[in-house]
Amino acid sequence: MRVEVRFSGFGGQGIVTAGIILGRAASIYQGLHAVQTQSYGPEARGGASRSEVVISDSEILYPKVTKPDVFVVMSGEAMQKYIRDVGRGCTVIYDSSLIKTPPERGRAYPVPATMLAKRELGRTIVANIIMLGALSAITGIVDGEALERAVLDTVPKGTEELNLRALRLGLQSTWQEAKV
Amino acid sequence: MRVEVRFSGFGGQGIVTAGIILGRAASIYQGLHAVQTQSYGPEARGGASRSEVVISDSEILYPKVTKPDVFVVMSGEAMQKYIRDVGRGCTVIYDSSLIKTPPERGRAYPVPATMLAKRELGRTIVANIIMLGALSAITGIVDGEALERAVLDTVPKGTEELNLRALRLGLQSTWQEAKV
Repeated sequence: MRVEVRFSGFGGQGIVTAGIILGRAASIYQGLHAVQTQSYGPEARGGASRSEVVISDSEILYPKVTKPDVFVVMSGEAMQKYIRDVGRGCTVIYDSSLIKTPPERGRAYPVPATMLAKRELGRTIVANIIMLGALSAITGIVDGEALERAVLDTVPKGTEELNLRALRLGLQSTWQEAKV
Repeated sequence: MRVEVRFSGFGGQGIVTAGIILGRAASIYQGLHAVQTQSYGPEARGGASRSEVVISDSEILYPKVTKPDVFVVMSGEAMQKYIRDVGRGCTVIYDSSLIKTPPERGRAYPVPATMLAKRELGRTIVANIIMLGALSAITGIVDGEALERAVLDTVPKGTEELNLRALRLGLQSTWQEAKV
């Protein structure tokens, strides 16, 4: 078993944090192997952000993501940049409050995370955590309890309750594949 | 040019954050390529924490650290675990308030980061940032200004001033190689 997950969006959306939480949930709380990577090139200055996690039941010798199985995307720019790596079987979970057109490749799930974060919690900053909950609900790669524990390990002190509420928003909703 | 940096310590010391800040400083603020990695195996449950950064002036095809050029270590357990990867030319920067014996391999620089963080700033949580400042002062891989900007990008809101003070503590001191 090897699952490749890519998160992408713009700086300030917590793309790196989402990757770290998923890596921790899979490894520390579900006993799997995980490698979590950020790659920065000269283009990093542009404000795009990318974070990758490879999860496996055995040791991971090649930590790079080449053909993601799951692509979580939170900006139109990131969608444009990485859609070429999306194959037919890839699950694309996209923030539909920021990206209006479903991607033409992969199995696309719209999740209006930024809108939900704002409307339900008053803080757009936790949209990334809603996306993590949705990832669990849609793909089943990690379970909600493992994510919850990894969220508590990772987020700044004093923001635990806000982040757990965001996670549950993502976990509880019944996400549907977009009809393209 | 390729520089491999490994950070290690125990959970809660901000080992992952240190790696992220170094990766951002090198890439976004110094125009280099950087890949920042966390690998978790079943042993991750034990509370040990490891984070790696590869920095290069060209694209990084192999992101794993095999022979670190710089090893920043903040617990005796981590020292024991990774000292076998340290070669003669490796710079070992160790928290001498937590690790009493200098390592017998590499060029060892004691930095009493946890003690300094507590005494000067009243918060041991920023010992990792002092270590980053010391890394810059000792190795010159990244400059202080790039680190400062990356710290501001990364740390939680409201903790910026505390973290900058920690960084400057690490940058300003004149660290000396330990005599083994």
